[in-house]
Amino acid sequence: MKWIVNGQVVEDDGGLSPADRGSLLGDGLFETFRVERGVPLLLEKHMDRLMEGTRILRFARVPAREELAAGIRRAIAVNEIDGGYLRLTLTRGRGGLAQPLTELTDPAWWVEARPLALDPRVKERGVTAVIASTRLYPDTPLRRVKSLSFLENVLAKQEARDRGAQEALFLTTDGDVMEGASANLFLVKEGILSTPSLDRGPLPGVVRSWVLETAVRLDLAVEERRVKREELDEADELFLTNSTWGPFPCVAVNGSPVGDGLPGTHTRRWMERWEAEVAAQIGRDQ
Amino acid sequence: MKWIVNGQVVEDDGGLSPADRGSLLGDGLFETFRVERGVPLLLEKHMDRLMEGTRILRFARVPAREELAAGIRRAIAVNEIDGGYLRLTLTRGRGGLAQPLTELTDPAWWVEARPLALDPRVKERGVTAVIASTRLYPDTPLRRVKSLSFLENVLAKQEARDRGAQEALFLTTDGDVMEGASANLFLVKEGILSTPSLDRGPLPGVVRSWVLETAVRLDLAVEERRVKREELDEADELFLTNSTWGPFPCVAVNGSPVGDGLPGTHTRRWMERWEAEVAAQIGRDQ
Repeated sequence: MKWIVNGQVVEDDGGLSPADRGSLLGDGLFETFRVERGVPLLLEKHMDRLMEGTRILRFARVPAREELAAGIRRAIAVNEIDGGYLRLTLTRGRGGLAQPLTELTDPAWWVEARPLALDPRVKERGVTAVIASTRLYPDTPLRRVKSLSFLENVLAKQEARDRGAQEALFLTTDGDVMEGASANLFLVKEGILSTPSLDRGPLPGVVRSWVLETAVRLDLAVEERRVKREELDEADELFLTNSTWGPFPCVAVNGSPVGDGLPGTHTRRWMERWEAEVAAQIGRDQ
Repeated sequence: MKWIVNGQVVEDDGGLSPADRGSLLGDGLFETFRVERGVPLLLEKHMDRLMEGTRILRFARVPAREELAAGIRRAIAVNEIDGGYLRLTLTRGRGGLAQPLTELTDPAWWVEARPLALDPRVKERGVTAVIASTRLYPDTPLRRVKSLSFLENVLAKQEARDRGAQEALFLTTDGDVMEGASANLFLVKEGILSTPSLDRGPLPGVVRSWVLETAVRLDLAVEERRVKREELDEADELFLTNSTWGPFPCVAVNGSPVGDGLPGTHTRRWMERWEAEVAAQIGRDQ
């Protein structure tokens, strides 16, 4: 595989300094993209979130958005990706804990792009989830960005695997529903769609945001609000959203089926809307 | 500067994969050492904590302790360090979020060693601290290890700088005192030494542990317990501990002086005991 590191094509292993703050301090941001027919989906939304992240984390300097987007397209081209996974990582570059953030003016970034076929069973059957044993504090800038300090998520994904599930759901330290370790969460109850509001700490996911905007556009009932733990047991449907899958069904939590344990009508409608969105994007961008 | 990367000497820039989980997910551990007269201080305590960290984070494979220790000594030698800073970083190697931790059997590690003169004013005058605006959840494995997911600490250190202080103190999500962003905290009240107990989330610091063991050995009154926020205002003395400085005075919190605002008697005694410990280690190890 060929990487793009700071705008240069490098073979698998080269180019990243062991002094990079991403490697040393988890001090950086990332975005993961689904690539379909060579098109990175929701590119502008991802770039918006990344740039917002650099403001929240107070990057002293950020590569030009166009430069990063060119790196993304180049990684897709040199690796000849049709359907695949792409990840852009951006850090403050080299430096230690003692350096003021204002002095870190030489950021580093790299792009990974590789083919990835999606398992159709995820959308056909849905996934199962567990409630993670660790809770997350909602009131920190880290919840508002997709940062490299991702170890809680790494451990929660492994906890899900250990307990025979695919996803782990985080609660806030005060016991509300926040998000999955690699996805946002939506619930449907009596036809109304709900998702934890951003003050409850979920990542402002790009597909989450697409769902909310689409619901408003279609005049569907949708609420961003506090979601209590008990509501997961009472929901008619649950679905998850992330960049790789778009919306996909969550059919059980901690071993208890959601509704009748099958992907629900509203969830299937959202998956269809997503497929239409993807087709439209490919049509526009190719 | 020459780095040791996976046991090999490399020039500043080489050898770390952009696919390393340290760079991508903050998934790894680190130890920082003070080097005096070429001796890495408290080496065995650091290696104990690192190995305990690999168990808590469930590393599938860990380089031999002797191999890592040899890398540390080699980094000191090739960089000709007399007094300096040394850091060992250990990750699970390459891989993504989707891979089970049990499959990650090719860990990566690297060592940085550079000269560092310590500013004598830190010990003579002490430092000032602020209470960080973010709180940390105590009940997670991340609090028990020194992990690469360090962005909360990065932001808290910058908050301290912004507010004219040197250190930021974290409270737990339920409002108790936890630790500093780069140091553990001790308080002295009426001659009794106290520090937050590990169930309140502080890193099990190697100098913290040295202080506790030394206090027991000398039959001094010492308590590991819940420390409430208000106790900081009422303390006679506060001191911080970390690997670079050993114990050092903290003379103000959020702009209010601790005691009379000068390094206290107990704190000075602890700094003297530390100097004696360092001298003893140099005598043994050189």
